[in-house]
Amino acid sequence: MDSLWVVVCACLVFFMHAGFALVESGFCRQKNAVMVLLKNVGVLAISSLVYYAVGYGLMFGEGNAFIGLSQLFPAGGSEVSGLPIYVFLFFQLVFAATAATIVSGAVAERARLGTFFAFTVLTTAVIYPLVGHWVWGGGWLSELGFHDFAGSTVVHAVGGALALTGAVLIGPRLGRYGADGRVMPAHSMPLAALGVIILWLGWFGFNGGSTLSADAEGIAPVILVTNLSAAAGFVAALLHSRLRSGGLDLSMALNGALAGLVGITAGADVIGPGESMVVGAIAGVVVVEGVMLLDRLKVDDPVGAIPVHLICGVLGTLAVGLFASGAETKGLFHGGGVGLLGTQALGVGAVTGFCLVVGGVAWVAMKQLPGGIRVSKEHEIEGLDLAECGVEAYSSGTSGVAEPEAELQPSGSLALTGEVAS
Amino acid sequence: MDSLWVVVCACLVFFMHAGFALVESGFCRQKNAVMVLLKNVGVLAISSLVYYAVGYGLMFGEGNAFIGLSQLFPAGGSEVSGLPIYVFLFFQLVFAATAATIVSGAVAERARLGTFFAFTVLTTAVIYPLVGHWVWGGGWLSELGFHDFAGSTVVHAVGGALALTGAVLIGPRLGRYGADGRVMPAHSMPLAALGVIILWLGWFGFNGGSTLSADAEGIAPVILVTNLSAAAGFVAALLHSRLRSGGLDLSMALNGALAGLVGITAGADVIGPGESMVVGAIAGVVVVEGVMLLDRLKVDDPVGAIPVHLICGVLGTLAVGLFASGAETKGLFHGGGVGLLGTQALGVGAVTGFCLVVGGVAWVAMKQLPGGIRVSKEHEIEGLDLAECGVEAYSSGTSGVAEPEAELQPSGSLALTGEVAS
Amino acid sequence: MDSLWVVVCACLVFFMHAGFALVESGFCRQKNAVMVLLKNVGVLAISSLVYYAVGYGLMFGEGNAFIGLSQLFPAGGSEVSGLPIYVFLFFQLVFAATAATIVSGAVAERARLGTFFAFTVLTTAVIYPLVGHWVWGGGWLSELGFHDFAGSTVVHAVGGALALTGAVLIGPRLGRYGADGRVMPAHSMPLAALGVIILWLGWFGFNGGSTLSADAEGIAPVILVTNLSAAAGFVAALLHSRLRSGGLDLSMALNGALAGLVGITAGADVIGPGESMVVGAIAGVVVVEGVMLLDRLKVDDPVGAIPVHLICGVLGTLAVGLFASGAETKGLFHGGGVGLLGTQALGVGAVTGFCLVVGGVAWVAMKQLPGGIRVSKEHEIEGLDLAECGVEAYSSGTSGVAEPEAELQPSGSLALTGEVAS
Repeated sequence: MDSLWVVVCACLVFFMHAGFALVESGFCRQKNAVMVLLKNVGVLAISSLVYYAVGYGLMFGEGNAFIGLSQLFPAGGSEVSGLPIYVFLFFQLVFAATAATIVSGAVAERARLGTFFAFTVLTTAVIYPLVGHWVWGGGWLSELGFHDFAGSTVVHAVGGALALTGAVLIGPRLGRYGADGRVMPAHSMPLAALGVIILWLGWFGFNGGSTLSADAEGIAPVILVTNLSAAAGFVAALLHSRLRSGGLDLSMALNGALAGLVGITAGADVIGPGESMVVGAIAGVVVVEGVMLLDRLKVDDPVGAIPVHLICGVLGTLAVGLFASGAETKGLFHGGGVGLLGTQALGVGAVTGFCLVVGGVAWVAMKQLPGGIRVSKEHEIEGLDLAECGVEAYSSGTSGVAEPEAELQPSGSLALTGEVAS
Repeated sequence: MDSLWVVVCACLVFFMHAGFALVESGFCRQKNAVMVLLKNVGVLAISSLVYYAVGYGLMFGEGNAFIGLSQLFPAGGSEVSGLPIYVFLFFQLVFAATAATIVSGAVAERARLGTFFAFTVLTTAVIYPLVGHWVWGGGWLSELGFHDFAGSTVVHAVGGALALTGAVLIGPRLGRYGADGRVMPAHSMPLAALGVIILWLGWFGFNGGSTLSADAEGIAPVILVTNLSAAAGFVAALLHSRLRSGGLDLSMALNGALAGLVGITAGADVIGPGESMVVGAIAGVVVVEGVMLLDRLKVDDPVGAIPVHLICGVLGTLAVGLFASGAETKGLFHGGGVGLLGTQALGVGAVTGFCLVVGGVAWVAMKQLPGGIRVSKEHEIEGLDLAECGVEAYSSGTSGVAEPEAELQPSGSLALTGEVAS
Repeated sequence: MDSLWVVVCACLVFFMHAGFALVESGFCRQKNAVMVLLKNVGVLAISSLVYYAVGYGLMFGEGNAFIGLSQLFPAGGSEVSGLPIYVFLFFQLVFAATAATIVSGAVAERARLGTFFAFTVLTTAVIYPLVGHWVWGGGWLSELGFHDFAGSTVVHAVGGALALTGAVLIGPRLGRYGADGRVMPAHSMPLAALGVIILWLGWFGFNGGSTLSADAEGIAPVILVTNLSAAAGFVAALLHSRLRSGGLDLSMALNGALAGLVGITAGADVIGPGESMVVGAIAGVVVVEGVMLLDRLKVDDPVGAIPVHLICGVLGTLAVGLFASGAETKGLFHGGGVGLLGTQALGVGAVTGFCLVVGGVAWVAMKQLPGGIRVSKEHEIEGLDLAECGVEAYSSGTSGVAEPEAELQPSGSLALTGEVAS
């Protein structure tokens, strides 16, 4: 029964990748939408293969406080945490893919596909598994009593920190900042909004499955606080962005919901419903400020991945120290003098620092390769869809009501005798 | 195990909100699509907070035959109907949000966001919980033997009646009726169709979870009849609208599927497969007639929320009296002289009347506020997306293949030295 | 518990129909998108009714080696394979609808709706149930030891073979081949990509539920290999199409994922993770070649249904003979002299041949009806949406920012006194 619950939750987390793909392609410009989709489904495919082959072993294999060193291409038959290993592995696999796909949004519309996929391999084979080993694989942070229930740090701060390295080192989109810099609006708000609802839904699996058991008493509050924090984040971001800009900003409100979800992820098991609304509301305000701050710093993050995942991942990790209720805090805390909040700060700081360094080094190294890490100016201006994928996201030029005339012109050509069967 | 089933079903019902958002934005005009999405996700967020804080207590708290009066901000740890309270609460919460979001479609494209959200608070804090208490919380209608398995009355007739008050009191969209009135076609049929499939899927959770237990013998027929009724509704509406108009009307057929789903909701536990197809087919015909009737009455309901949810909600409630099989009817019926059909009519009549009065009074009262309940003519004509949200749903003007030339014009501006990193 | 698992999986398979609808409408031209949606939701509705009424009985009723002959309009209360009959029936029903909907993609944009729906009735009432009876209903192929775990043959080769008959006998779209033949690009890549992710998700239910039990040890590897094969198919198709054409072809990569899924479906219970990646990679290469081959043969298949479902269905069936591991192969094999691979070849050959004959005869017979099996040239050129459904998929002509001026022209008409309520 535990297994079934975890498989269902893994399916919900898998579905989050539809959400990420929609949010990113919706928020980006039309001329790059196909490339975004290719990148997002590609991350899912590559992560699946790489994490199975290598990442899982480095994360959960036998090893030391810093790395696991067994279980490459893991065989079936054994159990982990009371689950068949392949159930546990599949659940972990969709998490790894989540961390990797967060990077995608921040470097959208100008990263080279090849180097991005190479970075994805690095993320899911090494970076994410290492951090995961520290926190969930019995490593040094778990020894310290660091508490990250479903991954505010392990998934979201990791993905968000790597996203920051990419956004900074690849640089902003052409024309985004500078003398005549301009806002580049979402090409499809319906896709983006659908994506966020799907992510919100998937988060019930993300947090709910992290109990790794079908214990209803444990699952029930996790699901409830996840929902309340998202709701509070949405409302807070809508109100706060209204205060700051005067308008009704759907993008900000949607990112507010995601911020609330990221914010409650570390402590969904130890934070009560009332406090979860506070966490969500803070995250909703913080994400709006974060988006504005990044723009002032000219860090171009087309979808808001860095404020949502890095900033609110840090926030959520610290929220455990601030909002976990008394009895549960005692259970968590065995980290010594610095207290739970200090342990949380230490953990998320170490993880973020590690990711910034490794991610930064990786991008800089790949820059030396022929072609570098960024598409050519010509391709970026033309749009990656036509320039690199050879298609447009919406081929309205060759379809729709404008077509009949064109097709009818050479009237002889319509008499495709033998081809029209009826 | 019961809890897991109910949580999974709650997730399916949660996902219905993606369906509602897509159906409503798809059926509306492009110029209002962003506002529709904002409204729909907003309803989900607000309902989550309000129902947790207040609505649940009024619905399921200890009280009298008319209202519950405890369990505001309910604490965890206890059980309800054999489920952990937060499992039960989360399932009820997504139902409450469903009732609230039904209203949204009928007032789309011209309701003011602020007053609509205020109405949402009223719906999920008071109106829906009161009716819910009468039927599912041990109130007077449950005492009479009124049978509403999953909410043809409690959710759909409530939402639909409130939708009717909104549509009438806010009035039709500019240009919809009158001398040069015209049809306002769906701006995206793919979004609408996807939304309906998602709703159909979610209904398996809506009805299937209403058993509140994981008893497979009970769930199996519920799922089957839900599907058969939807299928029959789709086919009947497609055929009937063809008879009435001569064309193949996808909108009507989709609403026919929803009509079949609403129609079977009250009796999914007591109506057999054969009868469920009859119920669905009737609902499919009725919804087509209902849409046409509302248009003759100049009640502007952009998505057909009133025919689907109010008319078929009433129909479904009465269907229990007409189609429930003998043995099960006996079990249901303890309402005295009027018989089961009479009890059903009394119940749905009382609920609908209550909602029409309370909803009507609320809209009239809010009309007195500065700004009223409707957007300005200027905003309505311009479209709420640009006028109030500051963005378009599809920013094709600033993206796509037309852009490169524009970007290339001031060639100097492309040399954003320092921003292009590779 | 088994029942709950199967119901959840059935819901996932049900959701695949959203995937099919999106893939097909996304890959088709805009002018036919509404008709595609109508056809896809219609298939779901019709299949639901027909399979319940007739198909289930022919597939699982008592009978002989070739056909079941009882259980029309099956009554509830009994058990099948340890599940309540309506759970088992609902799971089988969504499978039947899948086989039927595969045909839809191959004949898109030119098949007549009425004859296509008639073909759907034939498929779900007779063709699919017969084959299903042979393999899963205790018929002659199951006697021979033919192994088709979740339907590479029963669902996909059947759907794909029927699709081939339709594509050939209805003929290619006007203008697709011939002197000035041209590619007809997907009208919406985001819809297509979302559809594929949904299908990938749904496949966890498709394969995972085919265990018909909640045995976690059995489910775990099935889910894992399903995911790995899809991932390998995506990557292989992306790389192989790049080799063949030089570009980044999202359509091919998406079809590669589907190819991997179809390819692993027959043997998901007996093929290990490592081999599953091989199967997926082969399927990804084969589907690219298959698409190109069909184009050389001038068989017009707008979505690639034939390469994905027929070719990879055959491949997946044979893969059981090639890749099933030793111990499991022994368990499977009781077919006599030809060996497991021979049995698999015999089975899929017989099924495919049967479908080609029956499907071909059916289309030819329907061609004799007034109206035939293909829409008129005029309708095809105008687009089926405007010509037959009376609407466009995207009504941008009547909405958006261009509208205000038009509405403001007859300024008197705006003063719809009495209609504007606030």
